[in-house]
Amino acid sequence: MGSVGTSPPPEVKHGVNFSTQRGFSKKLKSGFKETLFPDDPFRQFKNEDKPSRRFIKGVQYFIPIFEWLPSYTWKLFSSDLIAGITITSLAIPQGISYAKLANLPPLVGLYSSFVPPLVYAIMGSSRHMAVGTIAAASLLVGQSISSVCDPEKEPTLYLHLIFTTTFVTGIFQAALGVFRLGILVDFFSHSTITGFMGGTAIILILQQLKGIFGMKHFSAKTNVVDVIKGIIDNKQEIRWETTVLGVIFILFLQFTVFLRNKRPKLFWVSAIAPMCVVVVAAVFVYLVKGQNHGIQIVGHLDKGLNPLSIKYLNFDSKYLSAVIQAGLITGILSLAEGIAIGRSFSVTENTPHDGNKEMIAFGLMNTIGSFTSCYLTSGPFSKTAVNYNAGCKTAMTNIVQSILMALTLLFLAPLFGHTPLVALSAIIISAMLGLIKYEEAIHLFKVDKFDFVICMAAFFGVAFLSMDYGLLMSVGLGLIRALLYVARPAPCKLGKISDLGLYRDVEQYDTTKFPGVLIVQLGSPIYFANAIYVKERIMRYIQSEQDGSGDVVEYVILDLSGVTSIDMTGIEGLLETNRTLEKNGIQMSLVNPRLEVMEKLITSKFVDKIGKESFYLTLDDAVAASQYKLNIVKTNGVYDESVDESNHHD
Amino acid sequence: MGSVGTSPPPEVKHGVNFSTQRGFSKKLKSGFKETLFPDDPFRQFKNEDKPSRRFIKGVQYFIPIFEWLPSYTWKLFSSDLIAGITITSLAIPQGISYAKLANLPPLVGLYSSFVPPLVYAIMGSSRHMAVGTIAAASLLVGQSISSVCDPEKEPTLYLHLIFTTTFVTGIFQAALGVFRLGILVDFFSHSTITGFMGGTAIILILQQLKGIFGMKHFSAKTNVVDVIKGIIDNKQEIRWETTVLGVIFILFLQFTVFLRNKRPKLFWVSAIAPMCVVVVAAVFVYLVKGQNHGIQIVGHLDKGLNPLSIKYLNFDSKYLSAVIQAGLITGILSLAEGIAIGRSFSVTENTPHDGNKEMIAFGLMNTIGSFTSCYLTSGPFSKTAVNYNAGCKTAMTNIVQSILMALTLLFLAPLFGHTPLVALSAIIISAMLGLIKYEEAIHLFKVDKFDFVICMAAFFGVAFLSMDYGLLMSVGLGLIRALLYVARPAPCKLGKISDLGLYRDVEQYDTTKFPGVLIVQLGSPIYFANAIYVKERIMRYIQSEQDGSGDVVEYVILDLSGVTSIDMTGIEGLLETNRTLEKNGIQMSLVNPRLEVMEKLITSKFVDKIGKESFYLTLDDAVAASQYKLNIVKTNGVYDESVDESNHHD
Repeated sequence: MGSVGTSPPPEVKHGVNFSTQRGFSKKLKSGFKETLFPDDPFRQFKNEDKPSRRFIKGVQYFIPIFEWLPSYTWKLFSSDLIAGITITSLAIPQGISYAKLANLPPLVGLYSSFVPPLVYAIMGSSRHMAVGTIAAASLLVGQSISSVCDPEKEPTLYLHLIFTTTFVTGIFQAALGVFRLGILVDFFSHSTITGFMGGTAIILILQQLKGIFGMKHFSAKTNVVDVIKGIIDNKQEIRWETTVLGVIFILFLQFTVFLRNKRPKLFWVSAIAPMCVVVVAAVFVYLVKGQNHGIQIVGHLDKGLNPLSIKYLNFDSKYLSAVIQAGLITGILSLAEGIAIGRSFSVTENTPHDGNKEMIAFGLMNTIGSFTSCYLTSGPFSKTAVNYNAGCKTAMTNIVQSILMALTLLFLAPLFGHTPLVALSAIIISAMLGLIKYEEAIHLFKVDKFDFVICMAAFFGVAFLSMDYGLLMSVGLGLIRALLYVARPAPCKLGKISDLGLYRDVEQYDTTKFPGVLIVQLGSPIYFANAIYVKERIMRYIQSEQDGSGDVVEYVILDLSGVTSIDMTGIEGLLETNRTLEKNGIQMSLVNPRLEVMEKLITSKFVDKIGKESFYLTLDDAVAASQYKLNIVKTNGVYDESVDESNHHD
Repeated sequence: MGSVGTSPPPEVKHGVNFSTQRGFSKKLKSGFKETLFPDDPFRQFKNEDKPSRRFIKGVQYFIPIFEWLPSYTWKLFSSDLIAGITITSLAIPQGISYAKLANLPPLVGLYSSFVPPLVYAIMGSSRHMAVGTIAAASLLVGQSISSVCDPEKEPTLYLHLIFTTTFVTGIFQAALGVFRLGILVDFFSHSTITGFMGGTAIILILQQLKGIFGMKHFSAKTNVVDVIKGIIDNKQEIRWETTVLGVIFILFLQFTVFLRNKRPKLFWVSAIAPMCVVVVAAVFVYLVKGQNHGIQIVGHLDKGLNPLSIKYLNFDSKYLSAVIQAGLITGILSLAEGIAIGRSFSVTENTPHDGNKEMIAFGLMNTIGSFTSCYLTSGPFSKTAVNYNAGCKTAMTNIVQSILMALTLLFLAPLFGHTPLVALSAIIISAMLGLIKYEEAIHLFKVDKFDFVICMAAFFGVAFLSMDYGLLMSVGLGLIRALLYVARPAPCKLGKISDLGLYRDVEQYDTTKFPGVLIVQLGSPIYFANAIYVKERIMRYIQSEQDGSGDVVEYVILDLSGVTSIDMTGIEGLLETNRTLEKNGIQMSLVNPRLEVMEKLITSKFVDKIGKESFYLTLDDAVAASQYKLNIVKTNGVYDESVDESNHHD
């Protein structure tokens, strides 16, 4: 192999550990655990000695309500009650409006704030989550199912298909949780969600202009171009009466938001503002006989709790693929939103939050919801933020919300039938204005251009193409970014900071170099996708060293400290690099391979081929060895047999 | 932020570099260069001062023949001539057999060894490549186009569609080269190719049993189950005469392979063996009047060079999608094979090889080939290996092959019409037996289980489903592996090897720990896909520290030396981690962020939020600082204002 193992320099202080190797089952178990159980979820009860304690802890783990309910107090309840009332006052107008986004009867929106919050209160791990329907998913599911069934012509079939979609979503979410595939949700980056929310907000605002303008005809499509064209085409339908009302409502709502931002203690003003708008608008329109002025209202609403809908689930193969597709996309989207918001509050308050438990809770609430005339629910950003600001302490707020919603359904539902559509539109527009986070986009642009592109792909994709395309494009770009990282893990050239004895990036720190020696810190991982790159990059370093300082490289030292994984093609790439270097009379040594890498280098016989004497534990040892050998060459004019084959030696 | 910036311990020797920041254009340029131009291809001529020299070097760069032809000698030519004759003797039987795999007239196979080698000789960068058709791609392209056009019923249309596919392949390959997207080929790992070749070999061998058994009816499908069922269903058609002949031929061919492996100098025996089989078989069958015994022959072959086919390219929209799909898949597949084999010999011989130039050369040879009645060509493993063993020195061997093939087409073609099909089948089977590399699979199994799965997915996918599914499954698994790596970049806990002053993985080396301090080396990158994981993993380390030794962690030191990239979600994850740690009364410090990471930490205001005093250049400094602060706590019972909020302090 042409190495100088026979005369190691005396400076080598400590060898690389060639002996520690884990067995296959241990490696598999560790890999499995890191991939699917990184939070070691069963730790809390599996270490209990007494079986009864272990059982109780286990039940508490799987059904979180048993964790907090035993120690629940009246003091906590008083906080939760206020928060619960606040979110219900938001849930009623939002429920009605978002149901309309999904082309559903308004009552379905109210039903969806009765059953699912109860389920979440039992199963959910977050203390701050307020369950409800979400605008983006409502629009998306409405669009998808409308493409196979016209909600105007076949409203019953359409409704049943929506329930079926919710069922699919629920099963899918629960399965993700059970199989601990939260890893899928991880691939929805913050940038994707920011862009998606912004794009959705834009198209929702444009869509709600229908309500604000009091128009009867409107574009069925949601993208910006079609909607604007639709408004221009039907501009003669615009009624000044509703427009004036709508603008006033929006201004009022935005003022309350402004107030909340100025004085956080006044959060409740903005929280009950939508309810006030609904009540004021309904009374006003009733008094002025708004129908005569073209002001449309929600229409008749029946009293009564959720009817059972389990028997209506429709798995007709004609619609199944659309239903499954819509269920999966909205399922993962609403998980991404719900988990992100739950996590952010749990960090602020240092309360528990478990992504996999959340998935199971969301899954169950959607599955049970689909049996009881509810459609897709999640943890909406806005409602959860209101809940948090209102001082919620536990998931009890969801029980309060549920009970109040039940009372509303039983006794007050008909009253809400008088709500003018323009009020609902104003509420949606006002909520959506808060979701266009341009400062965040500017921040992304400043910090990370690729993240900015990912965000903009979602934003423009949603606004100008369609919601699912926008989402897929953005997630796709995120995956490409991850793959590009693997294809090109950045190496860097190291030099020594002389007075400190440290080896650091020559671009970053003022370092000195050793003549004839090239030190490269390789990036992680070394995989099939970058094996050739790694070799070419090393050769380029050598070349530029010779072009720049005219210094002929005779030793290449590869620092593997940062490389956490290597595969077969990567190992072959290193062997190939070594072969090419040898042909050019250059010696290669490797410094500090990590455990997983070392295991593979040994089993693949790489170590045998390269020779154990080419491995060093520290850069200092490797450099000292190279200097020692270079001195021999300088003194004797030759250092070992491999020199005979090399072609550019001094 | 609750840090102790006001009283840094005296031990900090050297600060982290917060000042070096590259401009956007510099970062973009560097990122672009690393991604697409890692080999710095234009270095060779862009540094030339004289314009005329630069022009000459530029031409030599883009058209490699000008690089070696000026210094070409008679001595080199004598080597190349012998190698050229050898590969031609292989090219004739292989050309006829592989054309039959693609359901093409045998002559097209011969044409394909006339024009493409000439193009490659001018444009190709490898010295050892022998251009020709390849079995796997022939079968794959034949299958794909057969699905839209029956080669029996519409042979002319079928032929034209194959030319069109070749054209698409050529344009695609050249475009990949021009846009330097060799990165796509990188995603075909060695394991994928091994499995794919093995699976293809299996189905090819089974298919060729038709020729060996002399059967007339055979399964049109290629998967193992269907082919075996087809043989059993038509077993009454098996002719003992051809079977005996076939077995003899296979045994003879395998014996020559055995001979070559035993005595590499006798490589030429195995190289000319196929030609011998063809000649012997043709003469023998002619003498014994084989037709009477059910021995089929190739049939009439016209004399003459390649007719022009550019006018036959058929872009009918009815077939276009099949054509494009087949063109892309076979294009990238044949590139992966051709580039891999070229590279491996260039490493052995230290001769030039440039992946992007190869793509352009392959692209041009297929584009021009499609104009001149050729179908898909690449650099086949077997032929290139024969070329290398025969002592080829430059691409001149391809010119020799081309000229000899032209002479064959002009004068000898009709003679090859007498070749019995059984001889061709024996040649294919014998070639395929060499492609089933079970030792390689065993090696993969031992070294890397995931690589083994990737390999087996290709093998079984090809053998039991179809060639393209097998390939896609395997490449997909490779991508999943890369994404899994990004989702879970392995961190490790560090301890100090006391007598050496080094910090190393506690699992790998015998180290000592510092009470109250947890040192974690983070894996690279910190991206959206792992931001949550990184946090959960750190919390688990803290938890297990407390469960294990009962030691309460008060300092977490994150070693970022190995982290080469971070994105916005990753930065937020670190902030979130810091917030959670703070809530638990734990202080976090960061050691040695790399240049790219530091740039983003600064622009995202992370550094301002965490405080510069939390950054250290070495682990030693960070540990010393933590020890210093812990001592203050022990002495005074309090260390700073943030302690008031923390909840489990002694």
